[in-house]
Amino acid sequence: MRITDIRETAVALKSDLRNAVFDFSEMTTSVVAVITDVVREGRPVAGFAFNSTGRYACGAQMRDRFIPRLRKAPPGSLLNDAGDNLDAEKILACMMQREKPGGHTERSVAIGTIEVAVWDAIAKIAGKPLHRVLAEKYSGGRSPQRVPCYVGGGWYEPGKGVKELQDEIRARLDQGYTTMKIKVGGAAIPEDVKRVEAALAVVGAADRLAVDANAGFDRTRALAYAKALAPFRLRWFEEPTGPLDYALLADVAAEYDSPIGTGENLFSTEDVENLVRFGRLRPDRDIIQTDVPQSYGIVQFSRTLEAVKRHGWERKSFFPHGGNQMTLHIVGGFGLGGCEAYPGVFGIFAGFADDARVENGFLKLPERPGIGFEAQNALYAVMRELVD
Amino acid sequence: MRITDIRETAVALKSDLRNAVFDFSEMTTSVVAVITDVVREGRPVAGFAFNSTGRYACGAQMRDRFIPRLRKAPPGSLLNDAGDNLDAEKILACMMQREKPGGHTERSVAIGTIEVAVWDAIAKIAGKPLHRVLAEKYSGGRSPQRVPCYVGGGWYEPGKGVKELQDEIRARLDQGYTTMKIKVGGAAIPEDVKRVEAALAVVGAADRLAVDANAGFDRTRALAYAKALAPFRLRWFEEPTGPLDYALLADVAAEYDSPIGTGENLFSTEDVENLVRFGRLRPDRDIIQTDVPQSYGIVQFSRTLEAVKRHGWERKSFFPHGGNQMTLHIVGGFGLGGCEAYPGVFGIFAGFADDARVENGFLKLPERPGIGFEAQNALYAVMRELVD
Repeated sequence: MRITDIRETAVALKSDLRNAVFDFSEMTTSVVAVITDVVREGRPVAGFAFNSTGRYACGAQMRDRFIPRLRKAPPGSLLNDAGDNLDAEKILACMMQREKPGGHTERSVAIGTIEVAVWDAIAKIAGKPLHRVLAEKYSGGRSPQRVPCYVGGGWYEPGKGVKELQDEIRARLDQGYTTMKIKVGGAAIPEDVKRVEAALAVVGAADRLAVDANAGFDRTRALAYAKALAPFRLRWFEEPTGPLDYALLADVAAEYDSPIGTGENLFSTEDVENLVRFGRLRPDRDIIQTDVPQSYGIVQFSRTLEAVKRHGWERKSFFPHGGNQMTLHIVGGFGLGGCEAYPGVFGIFAGFADDARVENGFLKLPERPGIGFEAQNALYAVMRELVD
Repeated sequence: MRITDIRETAVALKSDLRNAVFDFSEMTTSVVAVITDVVREGRPVAGFAFNSTGRYACGAQMRDRFIPRLRKAPPGSLLNDAGDNLDAEKILACMMQREKPGGHTERSVAIGTIEVAVWDAIAKIAGKPLHRVLAEKYSGGRSPQRVPCYVGGGWYEPGKGVKELQDEIRARLDQGYTTMKIKVGGAAIPEDVKRVEAALAVVGAADRLAVDANAGFDRTRALAYAKALAPFRLRWFEEPTGPLDYALLADVAAEYDSPIGTGENLFSTEDVENLVRFGRLRPDRDIIQTDVPQSYGIVQFSRTLEAVKRHGWERKSFFPHGGNQMTLHIVGGFGLGGCEAYPGVFGIFAGFADDARVENGFLKLPERPGIGFEAQNALYAVMRELVD
């Protein structure tokens, strides 16, 4: 068996979203198909993925370096020892040839997206959902039936007051979510405190509300928010500092006893290890939010888990960035803390199978082989175009 | 006045170079022209730059995001207060719109290359060499006549023994260099120690020889080399660890009393600040090797200098990566420690003006307006194609 082709296309997100730091109006995402000569249900197996959201499309790097390297490799060198399926670890190593150390993000998003598409193909060839393939390889076969799923929202909009925020949260609770994350930092502290109080009144418990500052604070503001938010004992306080400002993060952690979450803007195992080491995060409570397709993919993520385990971090501390079907399988397969959802926010790239339903804060893991993008009609229409 | 167009092209390096970690056989570089409507000597002023070496071409990011953002900006918003020249700081801010925090390298190389080309245009419009423009803005007008310049080499090649290494070094001394940097890590420690002894015998003094491990060592090997090299008291020991492995770097620094150099694979002010803070580097001796066009350019480099100054680091500690004419001006204009040279190694992208001569380890700063790529015939032929 072999990879017969790898194709990619860039899709505009067309989102009018804006957080405290930047807007998504120009955002694009790369959609990838890894096509094999293995036939299932009468057609060649193709694995799909996309590069999550928040980082721009990376098709040029794929076309210039990573796809040609895989094309040039002897097909057998990319297979498992039995020769009956692809080997993601060998495929990652092949793509990393002739890459200089460091400078991760220029390549990690493109490589990770191809790698996750490879996993979709691997699971389809194995005839299993990806979470089960991952559980067998990385979790001793333990695969849960369902995973915790919280919902993000609470953006600032002109004319949106605390009443409208509460309406938004109520609608999410009606949809089956129990835990909500809202933005902070787009208003003055007293107004944000009122928003948090209003949100708490609806969600009903402090550990059902997280807040997200999107890395927009300077030192003064980060510490002032830490002081203002500490009494609420929220589920977590996300990105109180710049993603690489470990020194300030350590200072915030010293002042803020409740959980802190961060890591969606770190893209390498080395950066995450620096985060837990120098950011003085606390393995008994804090949250790491790696985006797997943006960070070299699933094999490298397993190495990140190993690296931080040496610092006392368990898998339950990981809530990966990216509210999508790829993350859902990764959370289930590795037994992570939970996944996020942004229903309707990032166009076709948001959410899970069209018939997926959140129940009491949990999402059932899908049984369809692979990642199961086939059950996301609008997204799959774009993916299908790559192979038809 | 305004920018009328920004054009770019990717050029293959065609280098058969290989260090201890990776090879350059697929390497490409982006060449950029920023064209203005200001006329000097009968033709529109164009500023040029390229993205140094070691990171692949980044034209897609330029075409998709940074060039369109500059095109869309009102021309006046990119000018200085007098309205008679471009303002690099405003141009940097314009390119950074709608960019998510972190994830630097995916954009820093493309933005930095355009930004350095803008500086070439600024200096040409001002009718001054770039180093003088930078000295006036950033160094209180103090601009040296010449800067220290060392030469890199000492690669491993089949059949190359200590005699051939000594011949290579002798040839460089004959060309006017006094300080040489050679590779380590491509052989076993006893052989590398013999190479260092042989090189020292030719250069004649320990502070005239540096060694470069190219970030290829694991913990055991990094510490073993530190121990083996310490007695020589070399000029510096470069990249003894992975670029982001600050914890190991701190351990190496604790064992290795002589200077350590690193930083060419860090691309943001935040990363360099983490390096000096957590890598426990010593401001009284260690060397930081930022690559300016790969790290958002000159304005951001001035911010990096300010950031590390708060940790006690002087400008003399900086020896920027990239043996080229851009770096030469930056070293002169900011009064940095010195620059590197790789004559003949990176094709048209290596070296300085065709008639530049190193004398007793120093290189004279050029007097031609701008960066002066016009005096590098082979490189300028590629640049000229972008504007003709």
